[in-house]
Amino acid sequence: MLINCVAYQDGRKLADIPTGDIDEWVRKPGCFVWVALRDATDDELWQMQQEFNLHELAVEDARHGHQRPKIEEYGDTLFVVMKLPELHQGEIHSGEVAIFVGSNFVLSVRNNSLQGFLGVRERCEREPEQLRQGAGFVLYALMDAVVDRYFPMLDAMETDLEAIEGQIFERGAARWNVQRLYDLKRRATILRHAVAPLLEVVGKLHGGRVPAVCARSQEYFRDVEDHLARINTAIDGIRETIGTAIQVNLSMVTIEESETTKRLAGWAAIFGVSTALAGIWGMNFEHMPELEWAWGYPMALGAIATSAGLLFWRFRRTGWL
Amino acid sequence: MLINCVAYQDGRKLADIPTGDIDEWVRKPGCFVWVALRDATDDELWQMQQEFNLHELAVEDARHGHQRPKIEEYGDTLFVVMKLPELHQGEIHSGEVAIFVGSNFVLSVRNNSLQGFLGVRERCEREPEQLRQGAGFVLYALMDAVVDRYFPMLDAMETDLEAIEGQIFERGAARWNVQRLYDLKRRATILRHAVAPLLEVVGKLHGGRVPAVCARSQEYFRDVEDHLARINTAIDGIRETIGTAIQVNLSMVTIEESETTKRLAGWAAIFGVSTALAGIWGMNFEHMPELEWAWGYPMALGAIATSAGLLFWRFRRTGWL
Amino acid sequence: MLINCVAYQDGRKLADIPTGDIDEWVRKPGCFVWVALRDATDDELWQMQQEFNLHELAVEDARHGHQRPKIEEYGDTLFVVMKLPELHQGEIHSGEVAIFVGSNFVLSVRNNSLQGFLGVRERCEREPEQLRQGAGFVLYALMDAVVDRYFPMLDAMETDLEAIEGQIFERGAARWNVQRLYDLKRRATILRHAVAPLLEVVGKLHGGRVPAVCARSQEYFRDVEDHLARINTAIDGIRETIGTAIQVNLSMVTIEESETTKRLAGWAAIFGVSTALAGIWGMNFEHMPELEWAWGYPMALGAIATSAGLLFWRFRRTGWL
Amino acid sequence: MLINCVAYQDGRKLADIPTGDIDEWVRKPGCFVWVALRDATDDELWQMQQEFNLHELAVEDARHGHQRPKIEEYGDTLFVVMKLPELHQGEIHSGEVAIFVGSNFVLSVRNNSLQGFLGVRERCEREPEQLRQGAGFVLYALMDAVVDRYFPMLDAMETDLEAIEGQIFERGAARWNVQRLYDLKRRATILRHAVAPLLEVVGKLHGGRVPAVCARSQEYFRDVEDHLARINTAIDGIRETIGTAIQVNLSMVTIEESETTKRLAGWAAIFGVSTALAGIWGMNFEHMPELEWAWGYPMALGAIATSAGLLFWRFRRTGWL
Amino acid sequence: MLINCVAYQDGRKLADIPTGDIDEWVRKPGCFVWVALRDATDDELWQMQQEFNLHELAVEDARHGHQRPKIEEYGDTLFVVMKLPELHQGEIHSGEVAIFVGSNFVLSVRNNSLQGFLGVRERCEREPEQLRQGAGFVLYALMDAVVDRYFPMLDAMETDLEAIEGQIFERGAARWNVQRLYDLKRRATILRHAVAPLLEVVGKLHGGRVPAVCARSQEYFRDVEDHLARINTAIDGIRETIGTAIQVNLSMVTIEESETTKRLAGWAAIFGVSTALAGIWGMNFEHMPELEWAWGYPMALGAIATSAGLLFWRFRRTGWL
Repeated sequence: MLINCVAYQDGRKLADIPTGDIDEWVRKPGCFVWVALRDATDDELWQMQQEFNLHELAVEDARHGHQRPKIEEYGDTLFVVMKLPELHQGEIHSGEVAIFVGSNFVLSVRNNSLQGFLGVRERCEREPEQLRQGAGFVLYALMDAVVDRYFPMLDAMETDLEAIEGQIFERGAARWNVQRLYDLKRRATILRHAVAPLLEVVGKLHGGRVPAVCARSQEYFRDVEDHLARINTAIDGIRETIGTAIQVNLSMVTIEESETTKRLAGWAAIFGVSTALAGIWGMNFEHMPELEWAWGYPMALGAIATSAGLLFWRFRRTGWL
Repeated sequence: MLINCVAYQDGRKLADIPTGDIDEWVRKPGCFVWVALRDATDDELWQMQQEFNLHELAVEDARHGHQRPKIEEYGDTLFVVMKLPELHQGEIHSGEVAIFVGSNFVLSVRNNSLQGFLGVRERCEREPEQLRQGAGFVLYALMDAVVDRYFPMLDAMETDLEAIEGQIFERGAARWNVQRLYDLKRRATILRHAVAPLLEVVGKLHGGRVPAVCARSQEYFRDVEDHLARINTAIDGIRETIGTAIQVNLSMVTIEESETTKRLAGWAAIFGVSTALAGIWGMNFEHMPELEWAWGYPMALGAIATSAGLLFWRFRRTGWL
Repeated sequence: MLINCVAYQDGRKLADIPTGDIDEWVRKPGCFVWVALRDATDDELWQMQQEFNLHELAVEDARHGHQRPKIEEYGDTLFVVMKLPELHQGEIHSGEVAIFVGSNFVLSVRNNSLQGFLGVRERCEREPEQLRQGAGFVLYALMDAVVDRYFPMLDAMETDLEAIEGQIFERGAARWNVQRLYDLKRRATILRHAVAPLLEVVGKLHGGRVPAVCARSQEYFRDVEDHLARINTAIDGIRETIGTAIQVNLSMVTIEESETTKRLAGWAAIFGVSTALAGIWGMNFEHMPELEWAWGYPMALGAIATSAGLLFWRFRRTGWL
Repeated sequence: MLINCVAYQDGRKLADIPTGDIDEWVRKPGCFVWVALRDATDDELWQMQQEFNLHELAVEDARHGHQRPKIEEYGDTLFVVMKLPELHQGEIHSGEVAIFVGSNFVLSVRNNSLQGFLGVRERCEREPEQLRQGAGFVLYALMDAVVDRYFPMLDAMETDLEAIEGQIFERGAARWNVQRLYDLKRRATILRHAVAPLLEVVGKLHGGRVPAVCARSQEYFRDVEDHLARINTAIDGIRETIGTAIQVNLSMVTIEESETTKRLAGWAAIFGVSTALAGIWGMNFEHMPELEWAWGYPMALGAIATSAGLLFWRFRRTGWL
Repeated sequence: MLINCVAYQDGRKLADIPTGDIDEWVRKPGCFVWVALRDATDDELWQMQQEFNLHELAVEDARHGHQRPKIEEYGDTLFVVMKLPELHQGEIHSGEVAIFVGSNFVLSVRNNSLQGFLGVRERCEREPEQLRQGAGFVLYALMDAVVDRYFPMLDAMETDLEAIEGQIFERGAARWNVQRLYDLKRRATILRHAVAPLLEVVGKLHGGRVPAVCARSQEYFRDVEDHLARINTAIDGIRETIGTAIQVNLSMVTIEESETTKRLAGWAAIFGVSTALAGIWGMNFEHMPELEWAWGYPMALGAIATSAGLLFWRFRRTGWL
């Protein structure tokens, strides 16, 4: 589905143009065309492939989706794939955007994602002195917008992790903690798969040998890399903390069980000694002199209470009860 | 066993040729021969070694099988070994294909694998404008076909992992979970051994200094690398998730045991106090005034029920029962 | 908030100058201006951006804070961000300082941090022969001061870790140990996030191709790197020890529980055999000859005591009791 | 102890020569001398050092043994140390071979190893067209022979691992499994210490800048590297599987214990309720009407059996019994 | 404290010289001065700084100690810091030696270490043909001596580890094992911190671009690197084995506890069934016909013994008892 197709020159919008006229506009010097597609049909992609002379393999990747993030050069054309993770009802769904950039065009193809990039276009059009840098700046603006979407997901994870950490030393919360930690780990992995492969390759867009189309915007791409590095470091931190938290949670469960076992042992001993004593005086021997004593019964109760009390005192002292 | 032996020129099939005529055809300019063997005998390999002037060590590797995946250059000839894992009755069997590629020939030797590459040949013959790139494109087509076979195995693993994840917080499923996770880890390791070594070396076929035979198809080999990288990342994700899942499963078992211990302790205390009280009133002292009371028995039952009830209420409140 | 703004020449302070005159002073040869801001307002940053011709992206980073430590070059200007972790009531708060350095100016912007850098300025002014190296030396002095603040935090962690290690084999300290270890890990992670990214990039300031402004102070920056490397190694050591300590702590809990279980089993057996014997002689059969024996009761007590004693002796011997 | 000392030319054996004549033979063009020592005395080593002009540090290493595998260049002489692990009664003993290679000599010094390299010499002499490559080929043949000895050890480990895996989900095998896994890990570590350091350095013998003596046999050394890489990957796989297996084994033990605890809890409850009921009807109150009922006793037995039966049914349903 | 100060020429000792004359001697061509200090005062260091023109930052490091091992170049002067771990009463104390090497001097400053380097000086003086290599050879001799001190510590650790491994599958040794393993890990970490940073940088002293003063002794420094690599590999092996051993130890404890729980469950069932049966026949119902049978009591004892015996036989069969 075509979202829009606009020609720019010198950082200013010239006109909304029909896709059929693209080839005229891209031939004008200093002019570039910015096309946005969404869940593109095969026909639309085929048309774009013709207009912009895109490489078959790149178009293939844009069509199928489920790519890992990457930045590839096909001759003078740059092909960028980025993940667009979105939260729907607590689950992360992974959309995708494929961006083709040449010296005189930008084509973005968005798949399985609800949020568009209209804001990016508006912001670019409000800053003509930067848009004048050309298609490379548009690529930066799109990448920056995508990366900015990762931050709220990261923040949500950090908030969740803190909530779990606040519960981790509470008794009885172990089951809930483990579930939350496992879920968090899964989400962290998804975000990491969106960020890490991109971080590996985005360095190609600034510094040493840089694709011509990005040359004027190098410092902006370094900024994108810096943001990605920040997210990546934060995710690594979260993942490691999750690992430790799972271990600590297991320790806490084991400690709790150990305490339960001690209590069980303590009370079992107290009742056990009482029952054994009562059992002895419940035996039916004919000659058990104490049974006939006037104070026999109170004495027996006293003996039972004393031994139970002694045990209780001793277990309390050693911290078992 | 010879599968077929065909000569191509300008991207079109010329003729099925007998293996004895290979040396004539490879001398024709712009012509290349594509030979496919399956579970080749020593004689067949020896003949091919003579025809294509293959290096002894490479032929040795193709004969013995059980190689790790690799890409090696012997002079102008490229030698590629890839794993062909196949599922038979839930078990992964690892076949292998060895491919020799020169400027004017392709020789593929398949071992211990049921699935052939006839589809690859057909597809190549249907696309003469690409087959015109020569033997390098055939290598790409074969590698692409092999790598495409890895995806369904990966998908099966991801499905299994999700099934296990759905069970991991269920009570009583721990034993089954551990077995499934261990089995999954084993399969992930096998697939990783097929992918990782190849990923390390496939970069040699595009980018910097590239073997002459691959030079025209570089972007296609980058596509193969990209697919391998995607599989590799996915396997790494699976392996890590398995590790966490095993840990979490252990935590769940320990939590469950801890809960059982608490229940055991709770009921032991309730029965213990009842038995102890009953034992006391079962003692045979002569002077136990309450035994003679008219309401002694109901009172005793009440005392037992009350203490048991109190304990029950208390354990319920603390979540032990 | 402006802290101060001073012009220097030949390593000596010339004058405190108003920010409005900065552009005059930076044009004088051999002269540089050192401005210190704290929790700068947007206006102040905007003014500084104009005076020193700072890059928009760097100013953006200085404004927002919460950056990861980094060293970036924008043309001839160096942009350095460092973390300023501070302890308030046992919690680590992370302030930040952003430093812009050009050939003729140093601008430091401190955010969310109570401790200033007045001491650094004083020390620089006391050593004119070194301050003569120019703005690069000021950058070194600031970085050195920041890194020096990391050492007491590291020392505190090492002291805490030793305290925990002293308790790790004590019975009953497991819960406290785990909590302390988890907290320590968290603090170690914060310090590591301040140190590790800086360590990765500080090598750019000495050795090979070095920004012009740092060229004369290379050996000093190598010293900073050495300090960072020392802290980083120490943190890695702490983190690893924490991991082992958590494992060992879990082992100790399990060992303790195992001992408790043995004791429980032992005493349960002793009381169990006593109760069973007493129960037998408490049965109401008419023909139980031993009940009528004169020495029946003492004999029964003896049997009970003997069997209990035998069990006790046996459990003691095997170390269960 | 001298094993043998032979001069070769053009790939053919010329003569067995006394060690005293070595210096004559090495001066003849196209001729090289191959000396094999075993558990060499200091005198023998000193003589060889003189004959071949070996570097003091290398001779030192060959004398002392217990080196890590390595490949070092001393001027034009290559010095190679390899481990020779051998199985004696289930234990791995680590012999060693040090090889000195120059353009016109090969000297191998074998220490603490029962198996010799006579087979290598014979094979080389049977293939004169390859031995013609000179001393470099002899080095390859020796290295290949050593590496080939690693494969049976690897196979034995893989067989053992499979045997353990077959037992890992069996009840009651945990102790045996842990011992076997630990032992296997130890053996894997020994083999890894023989392979990994070699793998790191063997790349020096093919590819880029190669020692002159190896230049003609580069493809053979790449084959050695390939074999080492295969072993190394396999060992890494084994080691990782061992780690997982230890974890899984612990999980199985914990699961088993959890099941035992459930059974214990179940039966304790069943007997506990029976004993408590029997105790109640064993109390000595005078007014317990049911005691006098004609059907009192069967009713009591019924009550006990019913409550025990109910508990049993319930525990069975929840899988505890 | 000055240990000694000697001038050498052509590999031979010229004279013990007062520190005040150093500047004369270092000016003589082909002559170098070797000074050894121990726990140097600030004055001594200041004097040496003047005599040898040392860089302020290096002297600073030598004064403060507690550096990580490192090799730094300050112009033509090489600055080396090495750890000197020493065993005092089972605890490792870490001394340090800082070495300054120029073309015509060697200055070693030893801190907190009892063992000196007199032996090194003596050995050097006995081998004039090597000492002729100059200050670089002295540096090698000192480094070699330091590294040689690491080996006995490594051997002690390996002996300890073997002792623990011999106990790891013994019942009841778990607590002792964990303590020993934790202590061993701590010692391994200390030695690693002495070795690993050095190993990273010692490669600078041989191979590619090498400081002039080391150029003639490159092969000796490669030997030092080889020794360091050997120690490092061994420590890594120890550390990994410790990790596995801690895991295995935990497994053994859990297995032991599991066995105890089974025994507890078994005996609890046996006594439980006995007590329950005795309780039933201890009830006071009037109509319990078996109580009046002549063989009632023996029959009851038989029933109890039979049920207990059956349980015992069953538990024995399943391995619980």
